[in-house]
Amino acid sequence: MTRRIHVIGIGAGDPDYVTAQAVRALNDTAVFFAMDKGEGKSDLVALRRTICERFIGHADYRFVELADPPRAKDTDYRQAVADWHAARAAVWAEAIERELPPDGVGAFLAWGDPSLYDSTLRILDAVAQRVDIEYDVIPGITAIQALTARHRIPLNDIGEPVLITTGRRVAADGVDGSAVVMLDGDCAFRSCPPDTRIWWGAYLGTPDELLVSGTVGDVGEKIAELRAQARARHGWIMDTYLLRSG
Amino acid sequence: MTRRIHVIGIGAGDPDYVTAQAVRALNDTAVFFAMDKGEGKSDLVALRRTICERFIGHADYRFVELADPPRAKDTDYRQAVADWHAARAAVWAEAIERELPPDGVGAFLAWGDPSLYDSTLRILDAVAQRVDIEYDVIPGITAIQALTARHRIPLNDIGEPVLITTGRRVAADGVDGSAVVMLDGDCAFRSCPPDTRIWWGAYLGTPDELLVSGTVGDVGEKIAELRAQARARHGWIMDTYLLRSG
Repeated sequence: MTRRIHVIGIGAGDPDYVTAQAVRALNDTAVFFAMDKGEGKSDLVALRRTICERFIGHADYRFVELADPPRAKDTDYRQAVADWHAARAAVWAEAIERELPPDGVGAFLAWGDPSLYDSTLRILDAVAQRVDIEYDVIPGITAIQALTARHRIPLNDIGEPVLITTGRRVAADGVDGSAVVMLDGDCAFRSCPPDTRIWWGAYLGTPDELLVSGTVGDVGEKIAELRAQARARHGWIMDTYLLRSG
Repeated sequence: MTRRIHVIGIGAGDPDYVTAQAVRALNDTAVFFAMDKGEGKSDLVALRRTICERFIGHADYRFVELADPPRAKDTDYRQAVADWHAARAAVWAEAIERELPPDGVGAFLAWGDPSLYDSTLRILDAVAQRVDIEYDVIPGITAIQALTARHRIPLNDIGEPVLITTGRRVAADGVDGSAVVMLDGDCAFRSCPPDTRIWWGAYLGTPDELLVSGTVGDVGEKIAELRAQARARHGWIMDTYLLRSG
């Protein structure tokens, strides 16, 4: 008698990115645990519910919203993240024991894929030290794959590597070769030489999708403006881009 | 009246990795164009047919096998790849015109995702300069995501980048931080320091799946032996691994 948890990658925006494996895990789940991401991201909460309504063949499931512990902003970044993960693990462990019977099945839904810039697996690892759970991981289509599919481009040059990185890193270290950038709120591509090629996408796979490509010199400012406008209009934005140095 | 082509990522081994979007594209397709990969990979050809049989709701489709032009081995690598792509483009263009009516729908199936170390998009780009086609790209679960899901690990350290690279590069340049290695027939991980952590997987998502993790010093030779045995037994191998420097 062990509580089971699915960590389900539901893809990056388009409900059609859901896999057959994810559909099976969704249907196996009684309780979906969800972080309250705040008012601004209500579109995302709605999309999560849409996916459940569309792919689950019964009504025998429910959502449990978990309060998200505050994240310290004025301390060391790594320490702040570690503290925040520990606080989350305590909240999750308590909720799993409270909401699931000893043989119950719960799930956490992850945007894109649970392995990529997502803390669910690290937190569940800590949860498993507090309560007796088994968990499995169901991969999902990442924003990177949505980006390349919508632009219809290869991620890598032939036989060449690709770096998956963050805006902070691009601003600090620049780009040599191909790099796909996630978690960039500051349009770090503007620090790249003007002949750097960029393929940018926001709200990928949704009706609000935005796609722009060109060189940083030609389209960089346009992307920054479009991004600011879209963010103001929606209250949130999720975007990513591929850079290739000239 | 334009011939349409779907480039469909069918995921990395497990038919359950197929997405709802891929299922729709599979059902929209009359002719599946396939490269003959040789006798050794007949398991892969069988899996492709299994996916079609399982997810297509009618019998109104067929496979057209395309002879694969030989790839020069003794010339410059980039030039050899470029020549090979051009030769493939000629074969594909001719087959598309011959096999599809002017409003027909064809597809190419790509293992994993069509954007990652796959030549289909580059070749179709060249095909589109010879015949009038429209094409779209349907993302799929990559071997990278299958690897991290099966090992239940994050791809990146918190806020840190990840390099997607090849065995050749790892042997030449080593690894600094996290790197996921594809296209490695030579166990390049053996060139890494013994405290490098490795998560290795082969035949991911299939009943023959192999998973090993540890440090290169502890499990490196074991992986190399296991890999050689499995390759001899199956006649082929598809594997990938994540490295984190110590």
